[in-house]
Amino acid sequence: MDASIADVSRPGRIAQPDEGISMEELALAARNHGMPLEALRYDVTPVGLHYLLIHYDIPLAVQEDWHVTVGGLVGNPLSLSVADLRGMPASTVRVTMECAGNGRARLAPRPVSQPWLVEAVGTAEWTGVPLRHVLDAAGLDPSAVDLVFTGADHGVERSIEQDYQRGLSVGDAMRDEILLAYEMNGGPLPPQHGFPLRLVVPGWYGMAHVKWLRDITAIDRPFDGFQNVEAYRLRREIGEPGEPVTWIAPRALLVPPGFPDFMSRARVVRPGEVILEGRAWSGRAPVERVEVSADGGETWMAADLEPDPGHRWAWRRWTCRWTAAPGSHLLTVRVFDADGPQPVHPDWNRGGFANNAVQLVPVTCLPEDQ
Amino acid sequence: MDASIADVSRPGRIAQPDEGISMEELALAARNHGMPLEALRYDVTPVGLHYLLIHYDIPLAVQEDWHVTVGGLVGNPLSLSVADLRGMPASTVRVTMECAGNGRARLAPRPVSQPWLVEAVGTAEWTGVPLRHVLDAAGLDPSAVDLVFTGADHGVERSIEQDYQRGLSVGDAMRDEILLAYEMNGGPLPPQHGFPLRLVVPGWYGMAHVKWLRDITAIDRPFDGFQNVEAYRLRREIGEPGEPVTWIAPRALLVPPGFPDFMSRARVVRPGEVILEGRAWSGRAPVERVEVSADGGETWMAADLEPDPGHRWAWRRWTCRWTAAPGSHLLTVRVFDADGPQPVHPDWNRGGFANNAVQLVPVTCLPEDQ
Repeated sequence: MDASIADVSRPGRIAQPDEGISMEELALAARNHGMPLEALRYDVTPVGLHYLLIHYDIPLAVQEDWHVTVGGLVGNPLSLSVADLRGMPASTVRVTMECAGNGRARLAPRPVSQPWLVEAVGTAEWTGVPLRHVLDAAGLDPSAVDLVFTGADHGVERSIEQDYQRGLSVGDAMRDEILLAYEMNGGPLPPQHGFPLRLVVPGWYGMAHVKWLRDITAIDRPFDGFQNVEAYRLRREIGEPGEPVTWIAPRALLVPPGFPDFMSRARVVRPGEVILEGRAWSGRAPVERVEVSADGGETWMAADLEPDPGHRWAWRRWTCRWTAAPGSHLLTVRVFDADGPQPVHPDWNRGGFANNAVQLVPVTCLPEDQ
Repeated sequence: MDASIADVSRPGRIAQPDEGISMEELALAARNHGMPLEALRYDVTPVGLHYLLIHYDIPLAVQEDWHVTVGGLVGNPLSLSVADLRGMPASTVRVTMECAGNGRARLAPRPVSQPWLVEAVGTAEWTGVPLRHVLDAAGLDPSAVDLVFTGADHGVERSIEQDYQRGLSVGDAMRDEILLAYEMNGGPLPPQHGFPLRLVVPGWYGMAHVKWLRDITAIDRPFDGFQNVEAYRLRREIGEPGEPVTWIAPRALLVPPGFPDFMSRARVVRPGEVILEGRAWSGRAPVERVEVSADGGETWMAADLEPDPGHRWAWRRWTCRWTAAPGSHLLTVRVFDADGPQPVHPDWNRGGFANNAVQLVPVTCLPEDQ
């Protein structure tokens, strides 16, 4: 009997109430990794610690052979090498990027996909050409509605064979800080972050930042491809059109203090003052203040938010002094952006997207003599 | 009631027969990542794709303040900065490193720990000072039996609070290729790989390559610390002394061909010739040949093993032509080293160490017209 794509690619599903993490979810977790939370210490995440999500495989790319084509509703179709792009005026933007699925595995019931806890985040300095310069050079037609970005990453998802593609409206694409990036943290893009070229959409979840970018096509209607219309939607029921996933919701994370147990990752501290630290960010609206709780959210302390260093699209550092007393504590932190606070409880959706419920860090403070 | 370390740190355990991956195992998988298997294409694994296992937390290290002390049974105790080490004759060694727990999550029953499938591997070029030169400079006493290497990584494991420490016999430590490494792939060590200094023990599993190295102490007996005597032992029953985990067992892996389904990672190819490729390695003995099977190990084809490029401690590339016909196939590969073949079925042990059973890659070949 002939095999078909449907044999290997099934519809999305929600885990049973007591279902452990499946081997399929584990296989995704073994390749796509989060940022160890102690790396919240760095303003810019060192290469290799930034979170990573690859839909299919890392394509094999030869920079000298790589071209990005710009076509569709343009007066002057282009085919640009990385050298061509390096010859255009460059811009560098510090960007906190987060996977839209961050927090998915903490939802109940759990949508079955990449099983992120809270660590699918990282901050990098991306250097490249502002997209609007390239679109200007291509002579974007006024009838253009969406731009379709196609990566070289090829695979199948819910029985649809595809190159990874995302549409972005012309209005969103013309923001000054949208880049065609060829450098990360001052060096060439690593293969896993889109070498030799990727799109960077500061303030939006990771799905918008198309890696291994090989084509940009202007079209006269909203893009109806899989990743825009099927995958990245906030839905409670199958078949709803749902709202699109776009801007990063506010989130704060703390560096788990003290030291961990290897297996449980539970934290141990000794009595006395502990300087808690972490980062807070929001794509939706500027960060305004941060609060910390040592009792699981019953009472809150104001954290010191470091002065705004002028990187609108990057996280901001905060610190908070906490006096640990022997016993069990539950640390948590929340950020308020200009639109309001980060929620204590998550909103549920079938895709497990944009769960920005607060991080919970159980801490055991030992007695004085241990 | 006072809390204690035993409240957060429990004995090792074996999963129940149908127990899914636990949230604790998932939390480890989210921080410690494997190498995406398509990265088997590279001779040297790009930074960020090399596997990573951190027992506790990545310590915050300032290179200018870092010293490694050399003491115990030596005539001339030393305290060496990274600059001091950079002033000594350097050596570069290409090393395939693998976690001793690679393959653990494929054992039945499953030992509960870092839940690796098959991808806890990577190859790097490490540059540093041969350890024997440092020991010579320190005047190692003939009564020394073991060297104890202490890292700055601090945590608790099965209720034992500890800095990560491993002992190595003087005989093993005096091999020419053992390094105190301060560079990886030509750049400073990344934080997650031991910045600013680590031990590299080519041919041994990863637990021997102590990261964030801050002390070397020569002692007159075999080291009886946790990581040598409790953790990294091959045991079938609790309480057995067990054999120590040392040299890397032979393993071959293939780059899964075609393209994947996002969720299942199952592979799809189209009919015709497919060039399979991968790598093979063994710490125990030199690699001699590689065989590939497309029927789950019933019949085997000889693969072409690339000529030995003279990197004894690194993997070797192999290729094999396979003609895919429509239907379902189960690809696998095995290496023979000078001591014999890689096993088709795993040996079980309580720690889930050194499971070098063959990789299994189900592939669906579509009909001609799909």
